Amino acid sequence: MAEKFISERNLKFLLHEVFRIEELTRYPYYEDHSKEIFDMILDTALKVSKDKLFPILEEMDTDQPEFIDGHVTVHPNVRDLMNEFGEGGWINANFSYDLGGQQLPLAVVLASRFVFFAANYSASVYPSLASGAARLIASFGTDDMKDLYLPNMFAGTWQGTMALTEPQAGSSLADITTTAEPTDGGYYTMRGQKIFISAADHDGVDNIVHLMLAKIKGAPAGVKGISLFVVPRERIEASGELVFNDVHVAGIYHKLGYRGAPIVQLSVGENNECRGYLVGEPNKGLSYMFQMMNEQRIDVGLGAAGIASAAYYAALEYTKERPQGRRMTEKDPTLPQVFIIEHADIKRMLLFQRAVVEGSLSLLLQCATYADYEKVMDGEDKEKYSFLLDLLTPVAKSYPSEMGILSVSQGLQCLGGYGYCDEFPLQQYYRDVRIHPIHEGTTGIHGITLLGRNISLNGGKAYRLYLDEVTATANDAREFPELAEQANELRDALDTLQDVTATLLEVRKKGNAELFTADATLYLELFGIISIAWQWLKQAIIIRKALQDDATGHDADFYNGKLTTFRYFFDYELPKIEGLAKTLKKHSGVTIAMNEPLFSD
Amino acid sequence: MAEKFISERNLKFLLHEVFRIEELTRYPYYEDHSKEIFDMILDTALKVSKDKLFPILEEMDTDQPEFIDGHVTVHPNVRDLMNEFGEGGWINANFSYDLGGQQLPLAVVLASRFVFFAANYSASVYPSLASGAARLIASFGTDDMKDLYLPNMFAGTWQGTMALTEPQAGSSLADITTTAEPTDGGYYTMRGQKIFISAADHDGVDNIVHLMLAKIKGAPAGVKGISLFVVPRERIEASGELVFNDVHVAGIYHKLGYRGAPIVQLSVGENNECRGYLVGEPNKGLSYMFQMMNEQRIDVGLGAAGIASAAYYAALEYTKERPQGRRMTEKDPTLPQVFIIEHADIKRMLLFQRAVVEGSLSLLLQCATYADYEKVMDGEDKEKYSFLLDLLTPVAKSYPSEMGILSVSQGLQCLGGYGYCDEFPLQQYYRDVRIHPIHEGTTGIHGITLLGRNISLNGGKAYRLYLDEVTATANDAREFPELAEQANELRDALDTLQDVTATLLEVRKKGNAELFTADATLYLELFGIISIAWQWLKQAIIIRKALQDDATGHDADFYNGKLTTFRYFFDYELPKIEGLAKTLKKHSGVTIAMNEPLFSD
Repeated sequence: MAEKFISERNLKFLLHEVFRIEELTRYPYYEDHSKEIFDMILDTALKVSKDKLFPILEEMDTDQPEFIDGHVTVHPNVRDLMNEFGEGGWINANFSYDLGGQQLPLAVVLASRFVFFAANYSASVYPSLASGAARLIASFGTDDMKDLYLPNMFAGTWQGTMALTEPQAGSSLADITTTAEPTDGGYYTMRGQKIFISAADHDGVDNIVHLMLAKIKGAPAGVKGISLFVVPRERIEASGELVFNDVHVAGIYHKLGYRGAPIVQLSVGENNECRGYLVGEPNKGLSYMFQMMNEQRIDVGLGAAGIASAAYYAALEYTKERPQGRRMTEKDPTLPQVFIIEHADIKRMLLFQRAVVEGSLSLLLQCATYADYEKVMDGEDKEKYSFLLDLLTPVAKSYPSEMGILSVSQGLQCLGGYGYCDEFPLQQYYRDVRIHPIHEGTTGIHGITLLGRNISLNGGKAYRLYLDEVTATANDAREFPELAEQANELRDALDTLQDVTATLLEVRKKGNAELFTADATLYLELFGIISIAWQWLKQAIIIRKALQDDATGHDADFYNGKLTTFRYFFDYELPKIEGLAKTLKKHSGVTIAMNEPLFSD
Repeated sequence: MAEKFISERNLKFLLHEVFRIEELTRYPYYEDHSKEIFDMILDTALKVSKDKLFPILEEMDTDQPEFIDGHVTVHPNVRDLMNEFGEGGWINANFSYDLGGQQLPLAVVLASRFVFFAANYSASVYPSLASGAARLIASFGTDDMKDLYLPNMFAGTWQGTMALTEPQAGSSLADITTTAEPTDGGYYTMRGQKIFISAADHDGVDNIVHLMLAKIKGAPAGVKGISLFVVPRERIEASGELVFNDVHVAGIYHKLGYRGAPIVQLSVGENNECRGYLVGEPNKGLSYMFQMMNEQRIDVGLGAAGIASAAYYAALEYTKERPQGRRMTEKDPTLPQVFIIEHADIKRMLLFQRAVVEGSLSLLLQCATYADYEKVMDGEDKEKYSFLLDLLTPVAKSYPSEMGILSVSQGLQCLGGYGYCDEFPLQQYYRDVRIHPIHEGTTGIHGITLLGRNISLNGGKAYRLYLDEVTATANDAREFPELAEQANELRDALDTLQDVTATLLEVRKKGNAELFTADATLYLELFGIISIAWQWLKQAIIIRKALQDDATGHDADFYNGKLTTFRYFFDYELPKIEGLAKTLKKHSGVTIAMNEPLFSD
């Protein structure tokens, strides 16, 4: 099995050279940290990943969670891992000191998480969910809640979850029916069904804390009547005793991949004894939950990029060691075969993977940086970073998720028949990565979010800020003649984007709401490709500067390899916007014209 | 589980209305047949599929082949199925009367096979391989061989295989090392290793007949020294007794999907007692094998289209029954939810699948029709059909295979989280369909075949014939004003193809062989999209004629549904050639510029 699953060099290149995260330490909030601390954290993440996560990747796929006697058992190492994540400070890293956290920049936290995800996605989901759920309590919970739950969740002894989906309401949260009945005991009595809840029961922790959406009896219909509750599996009595809180496991799902983490069906309040504790105000649950969802969405993009990274390195290793065929210009069969990495088509597949992985990671860290600056800025600057993060979240979730599938598929293809067989990890990565366009909002939902909501938010301000950011990068590239071509191509791509956007907004203006978002998924794809091109040009500028400073040897190879990948992206991926723009501008409405009877035969 | 896996109406539409296969019965070779017979055959294929293949789809995935005591055991129904396929005349259907066959058109045989593949790909591979192997013996074997092997292979009691791949020689057949040593007993002594051989051992038949590539001792290096042998697992003594022929099973592969059929490693002649029987002349084995490979390649395309068809109908059923959300124009949460088939993005995903499935099937039947006419034509006409079939084989193999993956993936996406779970068949189709771009030549190999070989074959004659065929369809469409737009778009696409082809041939002319084929995979993709657009326009012409004749009710829905799918293809899929053409015309050589050190970091 391949030993490498991420590029440490690239991760540090992005953090230090491209995003210059050290500059954050100028702000009081981050002032205790330094480049050395950031590097130490990454080194530790890599060590934990190599020692504890990667070695059980296959085992966690094979020995799936089981549902026995009403409880879920998972891989025996999960408990140890949760302790490790807790003790290592991985769950509370991005929280403020006053909450018991470490005030680390999100960029560093996500960079570490990328390493974990690449090493073993299923295993890394547990602490990542705990962190997200803790964030909700930290942001909107009472002080008592914080005192009660955060220390245990940070320690990795209590699992956090987000419990949204219900049988009759998947993507349509407006239709949830889980109810919360007020009592005069300071809690609500909960009753309902939740499905597809990750890590919602397992024996690797002592308790499970669900952040659950429900409707208070009498609340308005739709999303305006959704409230958020903390619903622990075992509630904590005043005495400190843990008492079963009537949260039952109805079953677990057997699935294509991502098998190391249990996805659970819950039956809540079967005996009318489930207590839920309101978080924040009634009927504001969805807006609170969006905070966690947005964080989880970035995580999903990161997970997809991580799996694609591991698949890429497994494919790369194979192509360097597998002799097969000869160069196009040398067909003498008596000469030895070459390694398949010599073939242009194999190199194309490798470049594609690298372009997707490193481009996605760059965009995700860009988002993290926005979050980090938002935290320490005020006024217009704060708003700017907040808007950009909000705008780009569906892109940062969906591009890596959709392209991660294709990337892993190309990795599998590099191995030919062996890629299809269990003795190599590609087939597992192929199964694992398929979840990402589904969970935390399908790609279709994110397309509608981007086009139907984000583009027009605050009078289109976020969108204009985005155009400014990309344009600034294209302008920066001007000082390097070697980058002029791609800088122009990016500017042209922005023109295309504006043209398409204007055309679609015109459709909305004319009152055709359905036609406006009918091709939102394609719009999201177009937006994603341009955003990744932007990130590659941004990287290329830094590399050109570094090469001017006479990088040599190993560093020169790294930089030149990245530059070639950058050129690959502009030559092979960016042109895909041509077809997308053509379809979007035509907006022929053919999908709307189709109706159910026409699908019959 | 969905009950429907193919559209019978569409299959008959293609065979009768588009390709008018009844016209073949004017030729003496097919004169015993009729439209009624063709329909009866299809009806029987559908019945067998519904009764015997589809019900064990999931079981064959779960209860995988096992390797026990040197032998492979498969699902217990395989023996019964092989008898059914034998007795039903499915294995010998396309063979001539004098060989014991039925002289059925390949179009009808492949249409039936499409039904089988859609119902249960793994189960249908056994008879299909037997048929392909029998064809090699029929074409190049001695009369004795035909007498000995064909009746048993046709009866489904002996399995046929194609044994090409070796550990050190996957795509590079030049490097096979299995040896054949001449004896004076009328046989060769075989020795070597073969890997990834489908159905190369199992307990559903009484014997296995390998059509095996090997090198006679002293033969020239490379592909010019490859000969073809019949190597039965049990050889047949003059007495009629079956004697073990020293063909050992070294193991089987555990794989991502396609799990109902065993993929086997063979160790041949460990005790120096394996006898092989030369087929045809020495050193011509590869050209013989290409006959079987080309037939199998069409089968692979058909298998991918079949699986994608089954996935499409499973997704379609779900989207019709799953309520979720509301229309864009109606957000009142107190109103009931709509079925998700109402959403434009879901319809887009369904249209994509249908466009891929029905477009692919059309191209595959187009190829079959060429083969059928080639058989009964002479001179230039025969050559024309032979050339077209040869030219299009890599396209008919690769487009359905590559797009089948994306199609099934979109089907899975339609089900959201349920698509990822074992209780629905989508996850199995997703795993099963992934084999197709790998086996019978990877997509990369087929790209090089198309661009590097086929386009220039016979001075480019096949390519020109293809342009003529597509142009003729575009011209035919002129008589329908409703098709004028798409007819023009197809003509423009042909211009793009010619432009790209001329640009690339110029590269070769300048002596840059590596750059010439560096993007062959993209060229294949471009060629594939245009070919499917051609097939859709061809169908649209027939439909327009039918609608002029006042089709009503159910038929009108079918025709209008197809017309909308046709429009979808031109609005959403054909534009993808824009980006491909841009990349191909630039042929920047960036993949060639990349080298191994630059992949390091």
